[in-house]
Amino acid sequence: MTAVTATREVLGGPAATEALAARLRTALGSGRVITDLTRLRTYECDGITGYRVVPALVVLPESTEEVALVVAACAEAGVPFVARGAGTGLSGGALPVAGGAVISLARMRRVLEIDLENQRMTVEPGVTNADISKAVAARNLYFAPDPSSQTVCTIGGNIAENSGGAHCLKYGFTTNHVHAMTLVLPDGSVVTVGGNGVEQVGPDLRGAVIGSEGTLAIATSITVRLLRTPEAVRTLVADFPSADTAAEAVSRIIAAGIIPAAVEMLDALAIEACEAAVHAGYSLGTAAALVVELDGPEASCAEDFARVEQICRDAGTTHIRVPGSPAERTLIWKGRKAAFAAMGRISPDYYVQDGVIPRTRLSEVLDRIRQMAEEADLRVANVFHAGDGNLHPLVLYDAAVPGESERGEHLSTAIAELCVEMGGSITGEHGVGTDKACSMPAMFGDDDLAVMLRLRAAFDPAGVCNPGKIFPTPRLCGERPGRYRPHPLEAAGLIDRG
Amino acid sequence: MTAVTATREVLGGPAATEALAARLRTALGSGRVITDLTRLRTYECDGITGYRVVPALVVLPESTEEVALVVAACAEAGVPFVARGAGTGLSGGALPVAGGAVISLARMRRVLEIDLENQRMTVEPGVTNADISKAVAARNLYFAPDPSSQTVCTIGGNIAENSGGAHCLKYGFTTNHVHAMTLVLPDGSVVTVGGNGVEQVGPDLRGAVIGSEGTLAIATSITVRLLRTPEAVRTLVADFPSADTAAEAVSRIIAAGIIPAAVEMLDALAIEACEAAVHAGYSLGTAAALVVELDGPEASCAEDFARVEQICRDAGTTHIRVPGSPAERTLIWKGRKAAFAAMGRISPDYYVQDGVIPRTRLSEVLDRIRQMAEEADLRVANVFHAGDGNLHPLVLYDAAVPGESERGEHLSTAIAELCVEMGGSITGEHGVGTDKACSMPAMFGDDDLAVMLRLRAAFDPAGVCNPGKIFPTPRLCGERPGRYRPHPLEAAGLIDRG
Repeated sequence: MTAVTATREVLGGPAATEALAARLRTALGSGRVITDLTRLRTYECDGITGYRVVPALVVLPESTEEVALVVAACAEAGVPFVARGAGTGLSGGALPVAGGAVISLARMRRVLEIDLENQRMTVEPGVTNADISKAVAARNLYFAPDPSSQTVCTIGGNIAENSGGAHCLKYGFTTNHVHAMTLVLPDGSVVTVGGNGVEQVGPDLRGAVIGSEGTLAIATSITVRLLRTPEAVRTLVADFPSADTAAEAVSRIIAAGIIPAAVEMLDALAIEACEAAVHAGYSLGTAAALVVELDGPEASCAEDFARVEQICRDAGTTHIRVPGSPAERTLIWKGRKAAFAAMGRISPDYYVQDGVIPRTRLSEVLDRIRQMAEEADLRVANVFHAGDGNLHPLVLYDAAVPGESERGEHLSTAIAELCVEMGGSITGEHGVGTDKACSMPAMFGDDDLAVMLRLRAAFDPAGVCNPGKIFPTPRLCGERPGRYRPHPLEAAGLIDRG
Repeated sequence: MTAVTATREVLGGPAATEALAARLRTALGSGRVITDLTRLRTYECDGITGYRVVPALVVLPESTEEVALVVAACAEAGVPFVARGAGTGLSGGALPVAGGAVISLARMRRVLEIDLENQRMTVEPGVTNADISKAVAARNLYFAPDPSSQTVCTIGGNIAENSGGAHCLKYGFTTNHVHAMTLVLPDGSVVTVGGNGVEQVGPDLRGAVIGSEGTLAIATSITVRLLRTPEAVRTLVADFPSADTAAEAVSRIIAAGIIPAAVEMLDALAIEACEAAVHAGYSLGTAAALVVELDGPEASCAEDFARVEQICRDAGTTHIRVPGSPAERTLIWKGRKAAFAAMGRISPDYYVQDGVIPRTRLSEVLDRIRQMAEEADLRVANVFHAGDGNLHPLVLYDAAVPGESERGEHLSTAIAELCVEMGGSITGEHGVGTDKACSMPAMFGDDDLAVMLRLRAAFDPAGVCNPGKIFPTPRLCGERPGRYRPHPLEAAGLIDRG
């Protein structure tokens, strides 16, 4: 997680980007092309600040046609580009390319169509996740994916990362809630993928693009699926004497055939940070707390809620808290969703990790993380989506203490790779981006990566669309033994890691 | 729907296929390579018999390694191939290529692993859809996608077509129930896509391959998601005096926020055929019948069932039948699932159509179909997934009456394109295959098709993997004005429709 300076030489160098900026000023007006260094610095990183690259220019298009124009101009000039929403990503997916362009979609925030009868809405990519739900809340509809950053992150970024959230245990990820998209391809052509039907026709390009972290196309119009607000929602917070007993309760809830809307776990350190920041009423000093939420029809919700309470008691809970009002429930969630940012209250610096394990190995993995933290002489806070095994260990360190930053980075990477060893994955919802690219070989073989690169090359043969992300490259990982191996197709010039 | 003779010349001609057959006999044993014309005829078509092509050879591999060996040998010899499961597809997706090979997966029918705790099963592609559920039925688990052909169709075919079924209204399609696959790519390399995690890492190749109708890869091992058998299932059949009143009931059920497991509609002609074949007790003479099924927890299921009954009464139902036993419920479904085949009872020949419309335009579309049928002087039976707007109009004709076959084909195609005009799609679940390729331009622009072709070329640059499917080609559609237009990238040799 050290600063990277460039991932690709820009053909033509500064002269090419200057000519590009001039051309775009003529087309869009000078107010929509930024080349001033002070203003460019705003775009140098996304939600993980360990990677910083100042772009050569930032462009602010306002329509599909303008995005197509900008992309075509970049492609012609050989200038790489990256699309950017709110910049809240946690894997460096929106990190600029040195000498390249940032295409900010911040001005594309219109709701284009609301079709209440068919429960669909079409929006521009800069609309925030929460604003989609707000626009139809009075009609008892909402957009299900709910990343913790939902009040600021945009639907465009949700598509790039295939974002999830606390409620994806029951409702799935962004890809399960997008019908169709208008895409600008890396050569500037405009295509439509998906449709209004229940199923895709032909190869599912919609699915291929969602989660591709901006490396295949830029979505400029997105038709999402809206769900009906559930009749009832019931939430509880159950304290446990150990992470093991809390994990056991999670296993029993799922084994009972109950599918909660969300099952979140916070350990003692995470609770300490949350309480310092939000005062949501989590029990300080308890080893682990579960937040369990059920939703659905009133009748079954009440029945299942009683079963969940009983299961928690059987598994050894020491205290169950049921919020007495919607405001209290909102506060519980505010505490949970603020957990990452709250770490600043208990540690000067921290790394956010994101990995997935089979739910059945939760206790075992938490034990291993504890041992690894002790060996590294660092603290690790755990706050995560327990129901689907999506861990978010937060490695706490102090950059001012020599060596802690390196030990922390090493521990964080080791935890991600432990998840793979346990039969899981290096990322659950934050994406690969810049941050995890060098861990991809821990999870995928050379041929697996080669086929991904072939897909990428089909969309972006010139390699101008968000290069340097997802795939390990010699520049990024070359110095780490075993992290980068050239594939035979790469030597033959048939694939390019960007 | 006339016989096609070839979609691609085989490089090297008969000599190449003979050498290939000899090579594969040496590798696999002579019993597993078929070149005898009589036996080859078994493979000349899939579930739609209007297209017939006898392949040059059929190979029967028994493992991933053998499939990889066969594919690599075909690729080297320049012999196109198509993978085949049970051959129940309804769009000619498994139609052989003249002079090419059929890779039958009929011998790959092992269950490789059952992981009850994590609700996953790994199987070979030749395992039937119903056998997956049977293997875990005693543990109260099942595989949700349920095409009508589920007792014979295979999971490999379900992946090729992204199969749905009556219950996909609530549970989604095959793609929503597959975690990971081992794939043999068209050059014979073996890769793994997807994972055990809840989400995909990197571009979702798993999603891109599911529904690609055998044009990108062959899945040789598939890890599926298993769901818990719902606590309660409630079914009713409601008769209506018109298709309009039945459609109105469907709209009101969905608008009430109820998500039934299935909502099927049969019109008078479909009921007549079903009853002649299965005697399931549908009311002869009623204009339309709805089959509504709810599942879930007992409490909410009972409550919603009462609401559905009331909505049907409010919408003007003339009779509601609730099956009194599981056997009676099974018979109702047997009648519905046998509907296509039952058409033989009331007509010498028929075309099965498959299109999607926005559910809100159901009445309007049924009216238009009625008018179009009158103009063509043919009968059309309707039996379909009403809840998600997936129509299956069956165009009845008599091939012995001069001109009826052509009028029927024309009417069937016009109905598919009417669906697009109404904001829907040319296929809901049967796929494009050979049958709908010439209708693709009704739904997609040149650039939309070009990006699909670029994806295809990324997986299969040599165009040997099930060529001639999905995309309109001059050979298949050239004689129909407007159905085929060369794309600029095609003229430049950058894409190839196969």
